[in-house]
Amino acid sequence: MTLILSNDDVNDLLTMPDCIDALEIAYRELALGNGANRRRSDSVVQGSMQDTFYSLKSMDGIVPKFGVSAVRINSDIVSWPVRDGTIRREKVPAAPEKRWVGLVLLFSTETGEPLAIFPDGYLQRLRVGAANGLAAKYLARKDAKNVALLGSGWQASGQVMAITAVRDIEQIRCYSPNAENRIRFSDQMSSTLGIDVIPVDSSEQAIDGAEIILCATNSIDNILDDSLLEPGVHISSIKPSEISVPAIKKSDLVILHTHDDKPMHIVPPGLEVPDQKQGMGWHMMDNIDFDDLSTLPELIAGQVNGRNNDKEISCFLNNLGMGYQFAAAGGAFYKKAKLAGRGHELPTEWFTQDVHP
Amino acid sequence: MTLILSNDDVNDLLTMPDCIDALEIAYRELALGNGANRRRSDSVVQGSMQDTFYSLKSMDGIVPKFGVSAVRINSDIVSWPVRDGTIRREKVPAAPEKRWVGLVLLFSTETGEPLAIFPDGYLQRLRVGAANGLAAKYLARKDAKNVALLGSGWQASGQVMAITAVRDIEQIRCYSPNAENRIRFSDQMSSTLGIDVIPVDSSEQAIDGAEIILCATNSIDNILDDSLLEPGVHISSIKPSEISVPAIKKSDLVILHTHDDKPMHIVPPGLEVPDQKQGMGWHMMDNIDFDDLSTLPELIAGQVNGRNNDKEISCFLNNLGMGYQFAAAGGAFYKKAKLAGRGHELPTEWFTQDVHP
Repeated sequence: MTLILSNDDVNDLLTMPDCIDALEIAYRELALGNGANRRRSDSVVQGSMQDTFYSLKSMDGIVPKFGVSAVRINSDIVSWPVRDGTIRREKVPAAPEKRWVGLVLLFSTETGEPLAIFPDGYLQRLRVGAANGLAAKYLARKDAKNVALLGSGWQASGQVMAITAVRDIEQIRCYSPNAENRIRFSDQMSSTLGIDVIPVDSSEQAIDGAEIILCATNSIDNILDDSLLEPGVHISSIKPSEISVPAIKKSDLVILHTHDDKPMHIVPPGLEVPDQKQGMGWHMMDNIDFDDLSTLPELIAGQVNGRNNDKEISCFLNNLGMGYQFAAAGGAFYKKAKLAGRGHELPTEWFTQDVHP
Repeated sequence: MTLILSNDDVNDLLTMPDCIDALEIAYRELALGNGANRRRSDSVVQGSMQDTFYSLKSMDGIVPKFGVSAVRINSDIVSWPVRDGTIRREKVPAAPEKRWVGLVLLFSTETGEPLAIFPDGYLQRLRVGAANGLAAKYLARKDAKNVALLGSGWQASGQVMAITAVRDIEQIRCYSPNAENRIRFSDQMSSTLGIDVIPVDSSEQAIDGAEIILCATNSIDNILDDSLLEPGVHISSIKPSEISVPAIKKSDLVILHTHDDKPMHIVPPGLEVPDQKQGMGWHMMDNIDFDDLSTLPELIAGQVNGRNNDKEISCFLNNLGMGYQFAAAGGAFYKKAKLAGRGHELPTEWFTQDVHP
């Protein structure tokens, strides 16, 4: 049977520590040459509604060790409204009932068959959190207790779930520009995690005394500059634009997520898509000698050294996601879902065939 | 509702002329900059069974004019047995009930929602046939009546369905190395098409007097050399290895399917995959000045000239498939399936979400 699973299933069954464990194994495998990741592609055309684009994003990965592969697909209506004086990328929930469309398809590497189909939303947050959590596990000071969190959205919650899974954190100070958001977020997270999450009025207040600084924003501008970095701190970002180039250059140790520097962009000639220029800040990476840097899989596999002492500044750039993460985390999730008897069971025959092209 | 459709639905509803019409419109759109195609990727790892590989292949495309996008996925167990003295690529039907796994996911570009999921097998044959049929429509002599068909397999049947849709063909002479296969194929096709399909004992017999030569084999060697080409003939192939480089160079007009010269290959370092070297003959294209050649979309959009007179030799190289074709043909199929009330209806809610990552 092929299972149709839901975000609720992911939320109920796959914990952040589960996801971290799965990715840790999978990253090591990848560094050892036992896996494959197909770089994300973003195909974009003019949208059917005024001032919109249609975007089809896909990425693939194979984790032989877990016996699974995955294709992750996002089918989005994207607009670029001006909010608070800044142009922002927004996905329009244009599917029925005002919903978004992101899917993971999971296949067996032993039989080829589709094992499961499910929305990507919750797994997306888990895998981003887990990647940055693993980076902190291997790079941050062992005695780190204070975290500065810049951001208070969906991804920020994944970041705090992950950092508390890899270090004995005592306090998280959260800053984001909107006071209401950071207060609500801090309240929620304090009760979820059972540790102090405190909203503060500035980045500086958040960062002062923190051994770990986590950036988790939608900002298209730098939010972390070199002047804010003290010896011994570990910094991490979920997109390249968050940490300034001088801050990256000030770091003693810089680890990337992947050597794929940016997605493949497929855009008809002449179509101007804002994202291409500024959305994620990939252009900033032009100023960094990318090929010289090592990756998280290499770090986890012990192919490069981590932190040498308590004075070094370490930096993790989650520069681009991997379809491979969806295979790894998706495989762990699927196993739990099968055991728990979750999901709508559909005949696998619907998704297989007796001819081969 | 999201529809789960089948190969039978494709077979019952989408005719070759339907598919040719849809692709003709879609190719023109692509040439005019109203569409997007993401190059095929082949990710390959060591298989779990002895002497096998696991291959995850994907390709995407968007046809705004039809309001659809598509992702096509193949999840295959591949082996390389020696058959009749030659090494051959074979897909192992390892899914339950000895089946293969190829899927098309169709999305709406207006709402982003998944419209349909169905196996790729029948649509695959239709879109390959339709591409070569369209090339013949624009390149072959208008008065062409005799076809040489080299090959007698699954793709060969698509080729004859397509050529008879674009020209008033009176006779098809079919050659393939195995006499039993070519006789069975010719019998079947004669009754299906209502025209003479005659099995012959050699390529030369098939080609003698033919205005159109269609290659449709699994051969990894050249099957059509320059010595066999008479003035005025139109030749076409479904993979680069079929037509020899001298035969391509002898042609007055050479049209490619796409400027994407080969798939992206994602293979772990050190893994030797036979396909990379010889499977499709992409390496042969190194001898052709690829960028100088025009493509089928450009030809259909009138951006380049077709045949100028009855003496020219024209050549179409279906060098690499496009996800875009699955969006175009899939969109036409989906429309018919909706009208006919086909498929299993699943709640679209299963494939959408109230969060966006």
